[in-house]
Parts: sequence; C-alpha cells; structure tokens
Amino acid sequence: MQEAQFISFLWLIGVLAEAMTGALAAGRKQMDLFGVVIVGGATAIGGGTLRDILLGNYPLVWVEHIHYLIAIAFASLVTVLIAPVMRYLSKLFLAIDALGLAVFSIIGAQKSLVLGFNPVVAVVMGVVTGVFGGVIRDILCNQVPLIFRKELYAVVSLLTAALYVGLKALDVIEWVNLIVSLGFGFGFRMLALKYKWSIPTFDYQAETDPHGH
Amino acid sequence: MQEAQFISFLWLIGVLAEAMTGALAAGRKQMDLFGVVIVGGATAIGGGTLRDILLGNYPLVWVEHIHYLIAIAFASLVTVLIAPVMRYLSKLFLAIDALGLAVFSIIGAQKSLVLGFNPVVAVVMGVVTGVFGGVIRDILCNQVPLIFRKELYAVVSLLTAALYVGLKALDVIEWVNLIVSLGFGFGFRMLALKYKWSIPTFDYQAETDPHGH
Amino acid sequence: MQEAQFISFLWLIGVLAEAMTGALAAGRKQMDLFGVVIVGGATAIGGGTLRDILLGNYPLVWVEHIHYLIAIAFASLVTVLIAPVMRYLSKLFLAIDALGLAVFSIIGAQKSLVLGFNPVVAVVMGVVTGVFGGVIRDILCNQVPLIFRKELYAVVSLLTAALYVGLKALDVIEWVNLIVSLGFGFGFRMLALKYKWSIPTFDYQAETDPHGH
Repeated sequence: MQEAQFISFLWLIGVLAEAMTGALAAGRKQMDLFGVVIVGGATAIGGGTLRDILLGNYPLVWVEHIHYLIAIAFASLVTVLIAPVMRYLSKLFLAIDALGLAVFSIIGAQKSLVLGFNPVVAVVMGVVTGVFGGVIRDILCNQVPLIFRKELYAVVSLLTAALYVGLKALDVIEWVNLIVSLGFGFGFRMLALKYKWSIPTFDYQAETDPHGH
Repeated sequence: MQEAQFISFLWLIGVLAEAMTGALAAGRKQMDLFGVVIVGGATAIGGGTLRDILLGNYPLVWVEHIHYLIAIAFASLVTVLIAPVMRYLSKLFLAIDALGLAVFSIIGAQKSLVLGFNPVVAVVMGVVTGVFGGVIRDILCNQVPLIFRKELYAVVSLLTAALYVGLKALDVIEWVNLIVSLGFGFGFRMLALKYKWSIPTFDYQAETDPHGH
Repeated sequence: MQEAQFISFLWLIGVLAEAMTGALAAGRKQMDLFGVVIVGGATAIGGGTLRDILLGNYPLVWVEHIHYLIAIAFASLVTVLIAPVMRYLSKLFLAIDALGLAVFSIIGAQKSLVLGFNPVVAVVMGVVTGVFGGVIRDILCNQVPLIFRKELYAVVSLLTAALYVGLKALDVIEWVNLIVSLGFGFGFRMLALKYKWSIPTFDYQAETDPHGH
C-alpha cells in the first residue's frame, strides 16, 4: 500500500498547512491561543468533516485517529511562534498550501468513489474537502469566505477532482493518476497565483432589492 | 403518485428560486462565478440538507439525485445573466420565493412524518427546511440572517408546517391538505409583504453587558 | 439513577441559561421574536447537537425529547420580558452561565465515554458541547465568536472535561467525580471572571499577507 502511504503523507502536509492558515486568520482577529487552536483545527479538518457528515460516513477520521488532532493543535501553536518569520516564508507557504489544496481535492474524490458514490458526487466532495476548511475558517473569523473571490482556488479544486475522477474512469493506474492529478492541481494553482488568473466576478448592486430584503 | 409529482414540481421551482436569491446575495458581495454557484447551491439545498443531517436521514437527496445539483448550478449562473432585468421582475420573483417557502415548509414536515417522527419535530423540520437555506446564505455572505428580522418569513414557515401537520392529523386527504397548506403559506407571505406585517422586535442595547461579553 | 437525575436537572439549568444568552445576543441585533427563539434555541442545543452529529449519535436528544424544545423557546421569550431587569441580575446570570458551562463540558465527555469513544475524543466533545453553542450564537449574530477571546471560557471547558475523564479513568465514584468536576469548573470560571484571567492573545497584523489573501 505504498500509494496509500504517499497520499497519507501528503494529506498530513496539507492538514498542517491548513491549520497554519487558520491560526494566522485567528491572529488577524486577535484571538487567544485557544481560539487559535480551534480555528486552526476547524480549518484543517473542517472540509473533510463536512464531507463525511454529508455522506453519512462514520466514524470521522479524526475521531478514530486522535493523534491527528494533537498534531493539528501543535501546528496551530507553532504558527504563533513562527509568525514573525512567516512573511519571509510566504512563497514556501503558498506552495505548501497549493499542494494541500490539490491533495485534499483528490482525497475527497477518492474516498467518495471508494464508498461507492457516483463520479459527480465524488467531484463535488473533492471540492467540499478541498475548499470548505477555508470557508469554515472565514465564517469563524466573521469574514466573507475568501475562496469565493480569489485566484481560482475553488476552480483548481474542481478541475483537480474532476481530472482524478476522469482518469480513474479510464482505468489509469492509481499511482500515475495520483501524480498526474497532483501535478496538475499544484501547477495550476501556482500559475494562477503567479499570473493572478481569476474568473469573472458577479457584481450586483441593485438599488431596489428584488428579494425584498 | 400524482401528488408526489405535483409536490416535486413545486419543490423544483422552490429550489431554483432559492438558488437565485443565493446568487443575487453572492453578487452583492462581488463574489466570482464559483462563489455564486456555491452560495446559490447552499441556499437552495442547505435547509433540506440540514434537516436530513439533524434527522440522520441518509443518503441526502442531492447525493442520490445529482441532476438537481446541475440544475441548481445552472440556475445560479443564469441569475448572473438575467440580473440586469431582475429589478423589473421583482414582483414575480417574490411570488416564486413565497411559493418556495411554502413548499419547503410542507415538504420538510411531510418527510419527517413519513420517517416516523412526531408532529412537533415535523413542524420544527418544516421550519428548518423552509428557512435555513436563507440562514446559510446569509452566513456565507457574512450578514445577520435577514429572515430573523423581516416580514414574517419564518412565521409563515412555522404556521404553514403546523397547518399541514394539523390537517394530516385530522386525516384530511393528502391532495386537499397540500393545496390548502400551500395556498395558506403562499397567500399569507404575499399579504405579509404587501402590508408589511411583522412581529415585535427585541431591542436589547444594554450599556453593561450581563453576560460579561 | 439519582445521579442521572441530578445531572439532568443541572443540564436543564444550563440549557435555559444558554437560551437566555442567545436571546440577549439576538436582542442586541434587534431581531424579531422568532429570531430570538431560533438564536436562543441554537445556543442552547447547538453544542450538544454538533457533538452528536460529529459522533454520528442518532436520534438527537431534542428530536426524542421535544419538551426541551418547548422549554427553550419559552426561556428565550421570557428573556425578552425580563430583559429590563437583567442588568440587576447580571451576577446571578453569570453564575448560572458558569454552572451551565461546567455541566455541558462534563455531559459532553460523559456521553462520549458511554458511547465507547476514547478519552481524548471525550475531552474534545466536552469542549464542543460546552463551547459551540456560543460559537453558533455568535455566527448567527454575525460576530467573531467571543469565547475565542475572553476570560478562559474555553479553557475552563477543556480542563473541566479533562478532570472528569481523568477521575473516571481512576475509577472515582461517579457521584464524587460529578461534584468535584462541577465544583472545579464552576469555581474556576467564577475566579477567572472575578480576576479577569486570560490566556495570551495572538495578534498577527501582517502588512503583507503570506496566504495571498
């Protein structure tokens, strides 16, 4: 099960990167250290947790494997310590975050297929896994979720999950599929950041509100 | 199963109307098209999804019937295209939204009864189904949920679900019950809008905060 | 089952206290009476509901015992009536809230152990039960969750749950464990309020945002 170990290793990197984005967001709201750990934890495991709740897939991963929770709490607190040097590491951090996004999207799709759900559900769950940790982070920090506005984050998740599911349907060997999907997701996200790619925005500022609100 | 088809048809109208309110709310926050689809989707199916999670009723409707997801994504994107004419259609839109509110409240109560839950739970689940799509929409858009402040929206949901459950308890024929409950919910909401009915507001602006916050 | 009755009685006090904090928070946002009931209800049962969803523990308590829902709705509305005198009762109210925090944390841990989950999960679920009602309240009211910033609220929950789980592991008699854990949690919270104890805050105001947001 070498490929399972490989994906687990990448998953752990992704989880820790997400915990760090959560911890930094908590710091921007001047939360205390407990808030930092909760927001870090919710960011790291929120997407996967929401996926499993939507699929009714119990027990949850972190309920069975509690050492993940401890690693996440640790990563959140370490973030506080290294925050002063984060700005010098921002490129590295963005790369790790991009890797995490790709890994989460693939794992979310993979788990759904293993559970017997159809390909469209698998792609949707890839996006839920990849993206909703950040959405939960922004809700806890009382912000409009940033991934709905920025740099193809969610689109990368969607296309990465779709690519993985598509190659799987074509019976591509799992190892090859993982590496191709991962390389695509990671590369696409990094290029989107570098060239500031984005998709069109919907700006609706009606003077009269059709919904009566 | 003609009444099931009738209610399914109305449900679809309600879902699409809710997707549109979500898409417009996303546009007010200048989200990108992906954010529009996510907020539209969460608004359309969020209430029913929360109901089924609270009841432990798996698999979720949209996990089994993925064409709904595609219709919702489509409705959200169409909203972007027709947004410029929305203000001329605002009365039509409010009527469709009122219909959706009544249908969701009835369906939420109906499903709970079919699953064997008691009448009070059924009414609560009618309100969850009718109202929480909009609550999730407002949370994603970082606003105080509007339905907690406006025009009897939630009260209409509560009374519509209670009427349906009450008539069911009286063994009224399902067809008659559906039409009476639907007519009541739709009519009540339209009248509340027209005459700006509301229930009292609780305005608590303590200088000293008793909760210590 | 006297200890079960004792803990049920304290739980009810805690639930009603939480409903009141929710109702007051709704009042600060000038919600209507329905919003008051929903926010009061979500605050009172949100933590326990989230715990049971995370554990896949169905049916939910309030789905089986609907009289709790009715008591919560009643407590929320009573809060509106007695709001004018709340400021004179603030010390009493804080004490009841502290009791509720301790009781919820213990019950969350206890339930998880009874369901066969390991001690670390039990402590985490104690915190989820004790704290997330308030988090949901603040999300519905569009605020940064206050418990992430104030007076050891979450830390009291964590230590209370850990103490209960620890004494349980040492085979301390349940009655003694309940009273010791409860006394500890209540006393610790009251002292934290009195002496304004807090844990360090993480203040991260980077000019350049390492996450690219």
